[in-house]
Amino acid sequence: MFSADIITLFPDLFPGPLGASVLGRGMGDGLWTLRATNLRDFATDRHRTVDDTPSGGGAGMVLKPDILAKAIDTIAPESDPRPRILMSPRGKPLTQALAHELATGPGAVIVCGRFEGIDQRIIDSRNLQEISIGDYVLAGGEVAAMVLLEAIVRLIPGVLGALDSRDEESFENGLLEYPHYTRPQTFEGMDIPAVLTSGDHGKIAKWRHEQSLALTRSRRPDLLDKG
Amino acid sequence: MFSADIITLFPDLFPGPLGASVLGRGMGDGLWTLRATNLRDFATDRHRTVDDTPSGGGAGMVLKPDILAKAIDTIAPESDPRPRILMSPRGKPLTQALAHELATGPGAVIVCGRFEGIDQRIIDSRNLQEISIGDYVLAGGEVAAMVLLEAIVRLIPGVLGALDSRDEESFENGLLEYPHYTRPQTFEGMDIPAVLTSGDHGKIAKWRHEQSLALTRSRRPDLLDKG
Repeated sequence: MFSADIITLFPDLFPGPLGASVLGRGMGDGLWTLRATNLRDFATDRHRTVDDTPSGGGAGMVLKPDILAKAIDTIAPESDPRPRILMSPRGKPLTQALAHELATGPGAVIVCGRFEGIDQRIIDSRNLQEISIGDYVLAGGEVAAMVLLEAIVRLIPGVLGALDSRDEESFENGLLEYPHYTRPQTFEGMDIPAVLTSGDHGKIAKWRHEQSLALTRSRRPDLLDKG
Repeated sequence: MFSADIITLFPDLFPGPLGASVLGRGMGDGLWTLRATNLRDFATDRHRTVDDTPSGGGAGMVLKPDILAKAIDTIAPESDPRPRILMSPRGKPLTQALAHELATGPGAVIVCGRFEGIDQRIIDSRNLQEISIGDYVLAGGEVAAMVLLEAIVRLIPGVLGALDSRDEESFENGLLEYPHYTRPQTFEGMDIPAVLTSGDHGKIAKWRHEQSLALTRSRRPDLLDKG
């Protein structure tokens, strides 16, 4: 079973969105587990200090390697087969392929940074895999961890259940998804495209594929170059 | 003031992470506002239906354009200057530059999709700008909206306050951020790089820039090509 551990200064934010809807039902059904641990529980002084000023100067604070080491080693001893992940804008970009890869594994131990960053020596010594959810900066790793887990967990067999409609989604076939329509037939003078109500499944599939291709070509030609 | 409105089937997930730490304090200080509205409040039947089966067949359900229109028009009438955004993997990729652009604006009205997607006619008629936080699929737009707002709100003047350390962060100068170190001086036999404790600010700045450049070249050469 996929088992996720989060090391964070804000454990109360979890499960949050990961406890809602299909993901929350999947957790209730025992398809995956989530535990959030407060990094501050591993501090050793009475102020429960977890950070210190950056060596060499600069703004912000840096999470201390010794405290992180205790947290990581307690939650995931060396024998724990799960990947140790650090959410970081410097990391490997999250893709649907990476989400699939992680979804077939035993889980993930995810460190959420805050403040300016975390000491490089803990990244090196604990072999933290840095993963980035995109080319932008957040206030901390918590929401990024939620994104990573949401992308992974919905791929675990049984989580989407009958709602399963993954094959035609964006990125699953290297293309952006075609447009969707539903009733009413006419909305503010705009009709549902006639082909979709034709009942001709071959034509519908062809139209959808063409729409996907055209949308990808116009919005994200980089995706076609990769294919 | 930056004012955010969210249209969602899960309003209870907000503010969630957006209410924590510096973002939450910024909200308390009146630097930005957040309101989440339940799309279901705009349903018209006694089952509070918001979705229907996709025209042309297929798995999942599609959010109805008529219900979405009522929600959007109520929350953001035509005179509302805020951009209307749909979180969608088909959208324009979120970048730090886009976050900056939105942070200087009046706010955002964000529609969160769920199920299979939303009717294309509402995207067209209400000129929804589709924004994607990355090339992967989520269970809904809620966590993506949190990412978008977290990236934006931390850029609003005063939110990071004295913690402000944005200029040297990943993407702000087109490079990934250099490694950080803090005490202890020796961690598991590894020392803080000597240059950082030299007190020579010129050398420190040069070392950090070289580290940023080397890291970007090795991990994300695509960022250098853009520059």
